[in-house]
Amino acid sequence: MTEREKVVVIGSGAFGTAIAVVVALENRHDVTLLGRDAALMADLRVDGVHDAALPGISLPDALNYSAEPDVLRDAGIVLFAMPSQAQADAARNYGPYLANDAVVVTCAKGIDRSSGQLLTDVLERELPHHPVGVLSGPGFAADIAKGLPTAMAVAATDAGVAERLAQTISGRTFRLYASTDRTGVQLGGALKNVLAIAGGIVEGAGLGDSAKAALISRGLAEMSRLVVAMGGQADTVRGLSGLGDLVLTATSHQSRNLRFGISLGQGGDPGSFYGGLVEGAYSASVASRLAAERGIEMPVTDSVAAIIDGKLDVKTAIQQLMTRPITTE
Amino acid sequence: MTEREKVVVIGSGAFGTAIAVVVALENRHDVTLLGRDAALMADLRVDGVHDAALPGISLPDALNYSAEPDVLRDAGIVLFAMPSQAQADAARNYGPYLANDAVVVTCAKGIDRSSGQLLTDVLERELPHHPVGVLSGPGFAADIAKGLPTAMAVAATDAGVAERLAQTISGRTFRLYASTDRTGVQLGGALKNVLAIAGGIVEGAGLGDSAKAALISRGLAEMSRLVVAMGGQADTVRGLSGLGDLVLTATSHQSRNLRFGISLGQGGDPGSFYGGLVEGAYSASVASRLAAERGIEMPVTDSVAAIIDGKLDVKTAIQQLMTRPITTE
Repeated sequence: MTEREKVVVIGSGAFGTAIAVVVALENRHDVTLLGRDAALMADLRVDGVHDAALPGISLPDALNYSAEPDVLRDAGIVLFAMPSQAQADAARNYGPYLANDAVVVTCAKGIDRSSGQLLTDVLERELPHHPVGVLSGPGFAADIAKGLPTAMAVAATDAGVAERLAQTISGRTFRLYASTDRTGVQLGGALKNVLAIAGGIVEGAGLGDSAKAALISRGLAEMSRLVVAMGGQADTVRGLSGLGDLVLTATSHQSRNLRFGISLGQGGDPGSFYGGLVEGAYSASVASRLAAERGIEMPVTDSVAAIIDGKLDVKTAIQQLMTRPITTE
Repeated sequence: MTEREKVVVIGSGAFGTAIAVVVALENRHDVTLLGRDAALMADLRVDGVHDAALPGISLPDALNYSAEPDVLRDAGIVLFAMPSQAQADAARNYGPYLANDAVVVTCAKGIDRSSGQLLTDVLERELPHHPVGVLSGPGFAADIAKGLPTAMAVAATDAGVAERLAQTISGRTFRLYASTDRTGVQLGGALKNVLAIAGGIVEGAGLGDSAKAALISRGLAEMSRLVVAMGGQADTVRGLSGLGDLVLTATSHQSRNLRFGISLGQGGDPGSFYGGLVEGAYSASVASRLAAERGIEMPVTDSVAAIIDGKLDVKTAIQQLMTRPITTE
């Protein structure tokens, strides 16, 4: 039995709310969902449901809500559950309220576009005195919040911190596995979103399930190359936060990244992702650049980046991807 | 440009017909589909379509049909495209007609139940003077026959034989990649069918996409353990014929194995697979035994085997699988 902790989840979108719900359901810790919209937070308390994020799912009585950053002052664990491109600002805004010994954890699956940094590096840059972890893996918010069995990874450089996070956040249905490979865990999450767009393009273009499976297979190989080049472990890529999440995202139509890819494959506008939460569309070009800087070949990621940047049309991209020799075999 | 070869595909089911179709379409080789049913073979020639196996797909004019094993006498490459449990009999029946230097290739994705042998070992046992290869990977028959982009692996112990098979059978849309890891390639095909049943059980029981993705992630890890213990390569498991095929089977409802699993998850009869071509249902217990003999842990495969053998109910199996610590992370 772990000690009772104060946990704050920043970000009242689907994922942040889902994590807050499952941790609060266990009633072993004091959990607060911290959002920017005071009226919404008050409504959640009264209504007991968050229709915009998790329709039909009851919020547990034990969950607290706030729009006041002051609730961070005595939190031991703080989860950053806003979109990737908003994490740097959030760290700057909420940093001054953090307790000295608070562990901060990024829950987003992307790479910071403006700096080209991994999100754990962004949080360390902005919050240099705090241990920084990352939570990633195959868990749809709705599945997590409904109490369906879900398994994800949580990584921190210090094994003790990773274990504490895993113990605190895990519950009967939501299982977190501790890792010390922050790079592998978060690149898995970021890159699978890019590959899901690629899988969607193939699906949208009507190329069939077999072609999509071949592409996913290649995608995992290129993901592995970048992870290793950036100091992560190939084994992590083959685990929950890499392969597992890639399988989930690329094959379930619950994924926004896959749906965006399908629209591209059907001739949709590459610029249509702006405004929506299509993490992979933001990460593609920065991942492509990180790979190029290290001399790593990532043809699938490069193609997605070029399509989104308007430098390559979908038809040509598909032809290139599908006729290029496959190097995983 | 490779030399013109005579290729015979034995087995006029969906997969055999699809391979015969794509190779004949290229018109670089002389291709014959050899079936047992003379009336069907005559109809295929007249109708130009195989409604039972590949509805709506035109059979190319260049494809030949026969029910006479004599057509094997001058074939350089012979593909065995009947179900796994029928391969030993087929080798015995057709063996006497083979040319001395014919290369034989198993295209089935299973393990021989009566002997516990891999199918390449079965063919070598029955046809000891012939080079034996295996063709496997993520390719649905309909996708292949329609000319959608598809990539699979072909393996033979001799790299030259593997390369010859890849060159001969590959076409513009159907790409075969040569490998020398017969064990890895064929175990990938056999085990993914077992894991697809497991994925189906989770789906049928309504546990959600996240749980299924976690299970697939674990399944790949246990597949890898058995492949390595049997002398294959872990890299093969992470390629097209392992991961790629697992993704395809476990996520597309075109898969009979997945559909059978879904019926089990919904409370269906474990004996209902008899008569249908659910390869994984036949392979599960033999895979489980191969693993036990080598001291390899394969909890997902063991559970599927126990359910099918009537030794474990689905509810208990799910509880065991979902609460057991995940060892891939």
